[in-house]
Parts: sequence; structure tokens; C-alpha cells
Amino acid sequence: MPPDTHATKQRLLDAGQALLLRHGYHDLGIQALLEATETPKGSFYHHFRDKEDFALQVIDQYMGAVHQALDACLEDPSLPPLQRVRRFFELVTKSYQGEGYLGCLLGGLGQELAGVSEVFRKKIESCFQAIARRIAVCLEAARRAGDLPASAEPARMANLLVDCWEGAALRSRLRGSPAPLHAMLDFMLR
Amino acid sequence: MPPDTHATKQRLLDAGQALLLRHGYHDLGIQALLEATETPKGSFYHHFRDKEDFALQVIDQYMGAVHQALDACLEDPSLPPLQRVRRFFELVTKSYQGEGYLGCLLGGLGQELAGVSEVFRKKIESCFQAIARRIAVCLEAARRAGDLPASAEPARMANLLVDCWEGAALRSRLRGSPAPLHAMLDFMLR
Repeated sequence: MPPDTHATKQRLLDAGQALLLRHGYHDLGIQALLEATETPKGSFYHHFRDKEDFALQVIDQYMGAVHQALDACLEDPSLPPLQRVRRFFELVTKSYQGEGYLGCLLGGLGQELAGVSEVFRKKIESCFQAIARRIAVCLEAARRAGDLPASAEPARMANLLVDCWEGAALRSRLRGSPAPLHAMLDFMLR
Repeated sequence: MPPDTHATKQRLLDAGQALLLRHGYHDLGIQALLEATETPKGSFYHHFRDKEDFALQVIDQYMGAVHQALDACLEDPSLPPLQRVRRFFELVTKSYQGEGYLGCLLGGLGQELAGVSEVFRKKIESCFQAIARRIAVCLEAARRAGDLPASAEPARMANLLVDCWEGAALRSRLRGSPAPLHAMLDFMLR
């Protein structure tokens, strides 16, 4: 793809990610996106089949960043396993801060769309499963290191962490504050 | 208000609550609501100023039911305080079951609208605060009864419970299953 075309697509994805986080899916007009990015309509439909395809690609980009953060934290050998998990959520908190505490794109789109779209319901559930699977590996390492009880169930705990995090992210969005995120981490990873 | 008019308003609120839970706010068309309830347009605008006013009244109705469930559970002297809290969330789980596990209306509308509407952001935050306040009273009773450590902070714990519940409700919506709700309650109120 020529560099300009690639840059246009990237600009649409970046602006779309910010707009979807604030507005959600149905309230986001493609026209508003085109105006915000000064992109002609044809250019959008050159890169994306439709709004659904666009939002799915935004989710893929978002998940790319999540996996990068997971790589950076969960595979840091200088930290004990439980600290790696905590570091990951602290990094996510920092990215929420940069956006003005609008919470999590996955949680937002999941809530809005799960009741009306099997495509988004399955997509977002698979994202949460992927995150939980990676955290579970780290919790299993913590269990083997004796930092969690031998009876701990890493997969169950990892899903619980992801779920409670999403609730805290919603409350953070409602309050425009990191306090619910900190309270949740302090309780779950104390 | 004459009985028929009252019945019409109630029919709109009941159908609207179910539709808002499944579709969210922006995907719900007033026209679809009118067709589902066989109500003429003028009747809707007789009872509600606009769609926002309608959704706010649906939230009030939803909160009425939440407070009824809180009354029934938290003020049951036959149960120890922590069991009363658990009973409340079990009752909510049962109502989610009746709706096909679509999660929580407050969480859904909160996620969708907090980024674009101060009215809904404040409204839904105040709902969560009201629920947490009532649960905190019960947790304080548990603390005084010695069922929680003397150092426990009921208000903080109650907000944490509400937040984690909302995350579990989102996951329940994504999976169409009560498993995330059960896992969260077992962990938090074990």
C-alpha cells in the first residue's frame, strides 16, 4: 500500500478509536469521522467495507496495544509474577488517564452492542478471553512460586480480574476518576 | 390521571425498559417502541417530553425495583448481614435470568452515554451511589457483628462490590450466562 494511503487508513483508525471511546458505536457518524480527519468519503470506503468493518478494525488496533502492554509487563523477568499483573493494569490506568478516564473501549462497545450484534458480542468476548488467558499464565507462575495458594485456580482468577477491572473502568468513566481502578487493584492484588 | 392513561404510560415504560436493555439508547427508535406497544405518537409525547425524559423515567422505574429488592433482602432480620447482601445479588441474578442474561440497564446506559451526556452520567452515577450506600449500611452491621474485620471500610467495600458486580454483569451479557455473576459473588462474599 503506498505510504499516503496507509497514513490515511491509520488516521481514520486513530481518530475512530478516540471517537468510539467517547461516543460509542451508534452515536458515531461516519460523516463526523470524515470531517474530523478531513478525509473524503470514498477514501473511507476504500479502506473499510462499512461502519461495522471499521469498528472491528479499531478493536483489532486496540487489542494490538493491549497485547503490547501485556508483553511489556507480563514478560518482565525483573518482577515477581503478581507484580507483573499489577504493572499491566497500572499501565492501562495510565492510558485511561491520557484519554480523560473514559474507561475501556471493549467494555463500552460490549455493553452497547452485545444485545443487538452477535458479531460484536463474539468479538469482544474473544478479546476478554485472550487477555484473561495471558494473565492466567502469569497467575499460574505466581502459584508455582508460592505467591498464590496451591489451590488457586489461575484461569478462574484471571477472568475474575478482567471482569472486576471492567466494572471499575465503567465507574471510572462515570466519575471521571481513577479512584475506582485503584480501589479494585488494591483489593484484588493486595 | 385516568386509569387508561396510566396504563399507557406504564406499558411504554415496561416495553422501553426491555428495549433499552437489549438495544441501548441510540439504537432504540421511538417508532419501534410505539409499534411494539401499539401506541399513537401523540400519546408518547403526552407522557414524555422527549426520548431523554423517557429513558430517565425508565431508569427511575428500574431503580424503584432495585430499592424494592434491597428492602426485601437487606432488611431481613432472619439472615446475618453478609447473607442479606448476598441474597440481594442473588435476587438480581434471578431477574437477569428472566431477561436472558442481558446484564444491567444501569451499566449498559452508563457505558453508552457517560461520554456524551452529563445528564445520564450524573444520573447513573447517583444510582450506583444510592445502591452502594444501602449496601454499606449492611456491611457496617456485619462489621459490628464481627463478621468483617474491625478495620473493614464499609463504604469502600460497598462501592467495590457494586463495581465488580457491574463488570460481572457485562461479562454475563457477553456470554449469555450467569457464570461470571456466580464467580464474582463466590470470590467477594466467600
